[in-house]
Amino acid sequence: MNGGILHTIHGPADVHALDAAQLPALCDEIRRTLIAYGHAHGGHIGSNLGMVEATVALHRVFDSPRDRIVFDVSHQSYVHKMLTGRADAYLDPARNDEVTGFTNPDESDHDQFVLGHTGTSISLACGLAKARDLAGGRGNVIAVIGDGSLSSAIAFEGLNNAAEQGGNLIIIVNDNEMSIAEDHGGMYGTLARLRASNGTAEPNLFTAFGLDYRYVEAGNDVATLVEAFTAVRDVDHPVVVHIHTRKGLGLPTAIDTADDDDATSPTHTDNADDGDAVVAAEDLAITDGRCEANHWINPDAASGRPLGARKHYGQLAMASLERRFAAEPGLVVISPATPGSNGITRAFRARAGRHYVDTGITEEHAVAFASGIAKAGGRPVLATSATFFQRTFDQLQQELSLNHTPATLLDFGGGLSGSDNTHSGAFDIAMFGNIPGLTCLAPTSGRDFLDMLAWSTSAANDGPVVIRVPGDAILNAERSGALPVSDDDPTATAQRDAQPWCRYRIAHAGSRVAILALGNTYPLGWRVVDALAGGVTGDNGKADDVADDAAESAIDATLVDPLQFSTMDGDTLAALADSHELIVTLEDGQLEGGWGEKITTWYANDARFARTVRVINVGAAKEFTDRVPLAGLNERYGLTVDAIVARIRRALA
Amino acid sequence: MNGGILHTIHGPADVHALDAAQLPALCDEIRRTLIAYGHAHGGHIGSNLGMVEATVALHRVFDSPRDRIVFDVSHQSYVHKMLTGRADAYLDPARNDEVTGFTNPDESDHDQFVLGHTGTSISLACGLAKARDLAGGRGNVIAVIGDGSLSSAIAFEGLNNAAEQGGNLIIIVNDNEMSIAEDHGGMYGTLARLRASNGTAEPNLFTAFGLDYRYVEAGNDVATLVEAFTAVRDVDHPVVVHIHTRKGLGLPTAIDTADDDDATSPTHTDNADDGDAVVAAEDLAITDGRCEANHWINPDAASGRPLGARKHYGQLAMASLERRFAAEPGLVVISPATPGSNGITRAFRARAGRHYVDTGITEEHAVAFASGIAKAGGRPVLATSATFFQRTFDQLQQELSLNHTPATLLDFGGGLSGSDNTHSGAFDIAMFGNIPGLTCLAPTSGRDFLDMLAWSTSAANDGPVVIRVPGDAILNAERSGALPVSDDDPTATAQRDAQPWCRYRIAHAGSRVAILALGNTYPLGWRVVDALAGGVTGDNGKADDVADDAAESAIDATLVDPLQFSTMDGDTLAALADSHELIVTLEDGQLEGGWGEKITTWYANDARFARTVRVINVGAAKEFTDRVPLAGLNERYGLTVDAIVARIRRALA
Repeated sequence: MNGGILHTIHGPADVHALDAAQLPALCDEIRRTLIAYGHAHGGHIGSNLGMVEATVALHRVFDSPRDRIVFDVSHQSYVHKMLTGRADAYLDPARNDEVTGFTNPDESDHDQFVLGHTGTSISLACGLAKARDLAGGRGNVIAVIGDGSLSSAIAFEGLNNAAEQGGNLIIIVNDNEMSIAEDHGGMYGTLARLRASNGTAEPNLFTAFGLDYRYVEAGNDVATLVEAFTAVRDVDHPVVVHIHTRKGLGLPTAIDTADDDDATSPTHTDNADDGDAVVAAEDLAITDGRCEANHWINPDAASGRPLGARKHYGQLAMASLERRFAAEPGLVVISPATPGSNGITRAFRARAGRHYVDTGITEEHAVAFASGIAKAGGRPVLATSATFFQRTFDQLQQELSLNHTPATLLDFGGGLSGSDNTHSGAFDIAMFGNIPGLTCLAPTSGRDFLDMLAWSTSAANDGPVVIRVPGDAILNAERSGALPVSDDDPTATAQRDAQPWCRYRIAHAGSRVAILALGNTYPLGWRVVDALAGGVTGDNGKADDVADDAAESAIDATLVDPLQFSTMDGDTLAALADSHELIVTLEDGQLEGGWGEKITTWYANDARFARTVRVINVGAAKEFTDRVPLAGLNERYGLTVDAIVARIRRALA
Repeated sequence: MNGGILHTIHGPADVHALDAAQLPALCDEIRRTLIAYGHAHGGHIGSNLGMVEATVALHRVFDSPRDRIVFDVSHQSYVHKMLTGRADAYLDPARNDEVTGFTNPDESDHDQFVLGHTGTSISLACGLAKARDLAGGRGNVIAVIGDGSLSSAIAFEGLNNAAEQGGNLIIIVNDNEMSIAEDHGGMYGTLARLRASNGTAEPNLFTAFGLDYRYVEAGNDVATLVEAFTAVRDVDHPVVVHIHTRKGLGLPTAIDTADDDDATSPTHTDNADDGDAVVAAEDLAITDGRCEANHWINPDAASGRPLGARKHYGQLAMASLERRFAAEPGLVVISPATPGSNGITRAFRARAGRHYVDTGITEEHAVAFASGIAKAGGRPVLATSATFFQRTFDQLQQELSLNHTPATLLDFGGGLSGSDNTHSGAFDIAMFGNIPGLTCLAPTSGRDFLDMLAWSTSAANDGPVVIRVPGDAILNAERSGALPVSDDDPTATAQRDAQPWCRYRIAHAGSRVAILALGNTYPLGWRVVDALAGGVTGDNGKADDVADDAAESAIDATLVDPLQFSTMDGDTLAALADSHELIVTLEDGQLEGGWGEKITTWYANDARFARTVRVINVGAAKEFTDRVPLAGLNERYGLTVDAIVARIRRALA
C-alpha cells in the first residue's frame, strides 16, 4: 500500500476537505495500514480496527483540537494519530517508534492527555467541559470509551456525574462486544439487548445515569457515523452515542481465539499489559473477521523467542495451583481482565472452571472480592500488573491489610523496564512496601516463587501477601545457569517458620562489603560480587572492564538475598555490621519510598551502627520514564556492575 | 429510657424469639437510644436512625453470623451492634467507648469486616458468596449499602460483577434520598423515579446491571421489611432490595439544614471525616423529621469549643479563594462529598455557585475531573481527607502527575490523630511524597498555608500541588502565640521563585544539632530547640523535666522548617553539614516510605557527609492504630520533647 489518501492527511482540516465519497477509501487505507503496522510492530490493533470509521467520522464532524477528544486508555487512538499529522509513523516501518501507543500531548496538540489506564476519559472530559463552561468558551468535548474499559470503577463515577454537570459533553461508547479477554459483568447483557433492539430496550444503563442516549448499529459505516455525530455536534447537554463496532474488522477469522500463548508459541517479551495474539504472516490478508481478546499482535521481530518472564512464571504458578484444585475447593485465581499476559492461558482457564474468575477491568473490585473470599475461608490468588495494582491502593490498605485476610497478590511486571510512561513497574515497592501488615515477597528464582506461593496459599499463612513475580533478569539467569547456588537453603527455613521469609538469606558470606540485592537485582548482585572478587566479568562480559579495580584489591563481598521488602531482618542486619563497613542496597524500582531507604534508616537510627556502617543505595530516581530501553535506565541509575563497583571502591577509599 | 426490650437482646436469637408485635416497640427503644447516644457521644446518627427497622428486620429474618451481613462503610451499623450483644455500649453513657463507630470482627463475630471507606460492601459480599459456593456451603450473604455510598466507583464494579457471579447474594440499597451532604449524580433521578413509581419505572439502574430487583416503599415499617426480607431469604441468585428510608427519622425537623458550622458555632475537634450537625439538647425530643446531610452530631462534651484545625484552615482557604471568584472564572472548588468537615460551609457553597462542585462520594472521579479542568485552563482546588485521597492513588499518579496539570489538592486530616483505624492520616506523606512530579507542601502556619494556596492556584504554578492542611498542633500554637517568628521571611522568597517552596526555611540558626521539623511537628521542633537550649519547658510545661539535661550542656540547635516533602533541598542540607553533626527529622506520619528516610538517605549517599553527619528519624511506626489518643501515639513513637532531647543527648554522647 502507498497510503494514497492517507498521505495527504496532515490534520483534521484535510479530512474535512475530502469529498464524502472518499471517506470509505480512506478507511480502507487506514485499515490496511493498521494491519501492516501491527504485523511489523505489534499494538492494540483489534480495538483500533473496529474504530477506523468512527475515528474518521469524528475528525470529519468535529474540529480538533478546538473540539477536545479524549480517548480512554488510548487503545483506540491509532487512527486518531494517523489523522492528526502522524500517519507516516504508521506508514513507514522505519518510523514506527516515532509515536507511542498512547495519546500524548507532547506528540500533538490533538492529544489531550497521556492515558494508559482505563476508564478515566469521562471524568477528564467532564473537567474539560467544566473549564470551558466556566470560561464561557465554546467547542465540543468528546470522550471515547469502550473496548471493556466501561466497566472500570471510575467510568461509572464519570457517567454518574456527567448528567448532573450538564452542558455539552459527548460520550462515544465503542461497543465491540468484548473486553481485553472477554466482557464480564451484568451490564453486558444490557448492552446486548440494546444492540438487539437498535437501542430501544429497557433497562438502559445510560439513561439510568440520567444521560441522553443515541444508538448507532452501523458502527463501521462511516457515512452513518458522520450523520450520527453531526446530529450531536454542539449539543447542549451530555449525550451518549452508543456505537456497535466490530473489533478486529479486517483481520482474518483464523485468529479469533488466539489470545494466549502456550509455552511453545512464539511471543515477545514486551512489558505491555496485554497478551499476545499470534498472527501468522500469511493470515494478514484483509478479510472480514473478528480479533478477539488480547490484542497485542506479535510483531515479526518477536517470533521464535522464548516466553518472557511474565508468562513463564505465570504459567509455573498456574500449574502449581491447578494441581491443588481438586483437593482445595476454596483455591481460586482471580484476574482483572488481562490473564493472557500473565501466563493464565485460555486452556488453563477452561480447565480451572470455578477456580478461575475474570472480573473484567475492575481492579478495585478484584481486591475487595479477594478479601471477601479469604475472609470466608477461601484462598484467592489475584494476578495483575504492578501498574494496575495502583488502582487498588485503598483496597490493599483497608479491605485487605487492615482486615488481615489471607489473599495472595501476584505482582507482574514490577521493576524497571522500557515500558511507556503509563505502565511503569518502578513504583510497586514503594506502594506495597509501606502498607502495614502486607507481607511483600521478592523471589529470586522460580523455586522460591513457587515455595512462596505454596506458603501464602496454605493454612500456615493468615494474612495478605504480595509476591513480586520475578522478571526477565532472573529468568535469563536461570536459563543460562548463571546463578551460583546459595550458601544456605531457604526451603528448610520455609518449612519451619510461620512467616518463613522474614529472614534474609546469605547467598554468599564474605566481609567488608555486603551487597543486599532485592528481587530482580539479585543476578546483578552476583555479578558485582564476582567483579569485586577479581577476575570476573563486568557489564559487557569482558574482564578488562574491571581489570583496573581488580588489580587494585580483591574484595570478597557478602551477597544477601532479602527475599522480601516488608520488614527489617534486624538480626541479620546487626550481624552484617560486625564484619562489614559498607552495605550496598540494590533494587530495580524507585529509591524514594522504596526498600533501600529502610535499610539506610535502620542502620542510621541504631546507635551501635550509626558511626561504623555506611550504607549506599542504588535504584531508580523519582521520575516518569517513557520507553527508555532498560539498559539505558540501568545506566542512568547506576544499576550496572561497573558503576556499582566504582561506587563501592570510592566509598572504601 | 431503660431499654426494656433492648436490654433483653443479647444476639439475633433474641430478636427471633420476640413476638412480632414487640418489634415496633423494640424499634422505638432503639431510636431513642440512638438519639441519646448521639447527644452524648456523637456519631453517624442520621443514617442509623433511618435504618432502625431494616436492621431489626435483617436480624429477625436472617441468622447472623451464619448469614453474613456486610455493612457498607459501617455508617449504618449501630443498630446491628445493638442487636448483636453490644446494646449496653449505647445504653450506658459510661460504656460508649466500648464500641467503635465501625464494624469490627474483633468486637463481634457478627461483624464481617472493619470498614470505614465507602462502596466496598458489594465486592466483599461477592467474595464471601464465592467462597461459600466453592465450599458448597449454605447461608445468605447480604450487603447493606446506601446513604450516598452507592455512587462510589467500586460499588458499581461490584454491582456489575454480582449478576455474572450468580448464586445467593442480597444487596439491600438503603435509599434515604441523600448522601453525606446531598446526593449527586444522574442516577439519583433514576432512584427518585423508582421511588415515585413503587419501583416500576424504567430505566432501572439495578436491572441494567443484570440484577433481580425488589422495591420496598415502607422502609421504616418493620413488618413490611420482615416480609420483604423473608421473600428473598435463601434466594438462588443476586437480588437488589431497594428500600426507601427516612434518614434521621425521629430527630426534630429543626436540624434539617444544620450541616455546617460557622466560626461561631460550637463544634468538636474529632478527626472524623464528616461535618457536624449542631443539635441543641432541647431539640432532642422524638419527632418525625429528617436529619439532612452531615451526620456527626455534636456531643455535649464538644460544645463551646473553638473550631478545630480542619474547619479553621478550611474556612480560611475558602475565604481567600472566594475573594478571587469574580475575577477568575476558572477558579473552582471541588469536594467529593464531605464539605462541611473541611470548612466548606453551606453558606460558602451557596455563594460560590458555579465555582463549587460537589461530586458526591467519588474521589477517583474528582481527581481526574480536576485534572481535566486544569488541562483546559481552569484552576481547581480539590479538598478531602488524607485517608480518602488513598482512593485516588492511581489518578494522582497518572491523570494528575504524569499529565502535569496544575490542580491543587487540599489534604485535610493528614498526620497522627486518635482516629479509628479506617481514617488514619498517618500514611499521606508516604503516599503523596513518592509520586513523581507532585509538589507536596506542608505549611506550618495559616499564613504559609494561604501563601502556598495563592501560589499553587496562580499562573506561576504549572503542575499539581498537594497542600497538607495544618493540624491542631499548629492551630493551637498559633492561637497561643507560642511560635517564635522565624529568622527569615518566606514571603519574599515566594515572590521570587517559580517554585518558591523548594528551599527549606531556617527558622533558627544554631549549630551542632539541626532539627528538621516537617509540618505539624514544627511546634514540637521549637520546643525541642528550647529544651536543648536550657531553661525551657518539656512536654508537661515544667522546666524541671529537662533540668538534668539542661544542666548537662546547653545546645543552641538549629530549627529547619522544610515547608515541603517532595524534593530535597540539597544546598541547605549540605550547608547544615558544615556546622552540625546531628540531623534530627520529625514528622507526624509513618516513617517507612515517609520524609525523614529521604533525608537520611540523602546524607548517607553523599560521600562528603556519610561519615561526618549522623541522622536520626522520629515518626510513626508502620502499623494501624485504632482510637489511640494522640498523646499516646506521640509517646509510643518518641514524638515528645523529652524523648527527642534524650535521643539527641545519647547520640551526641
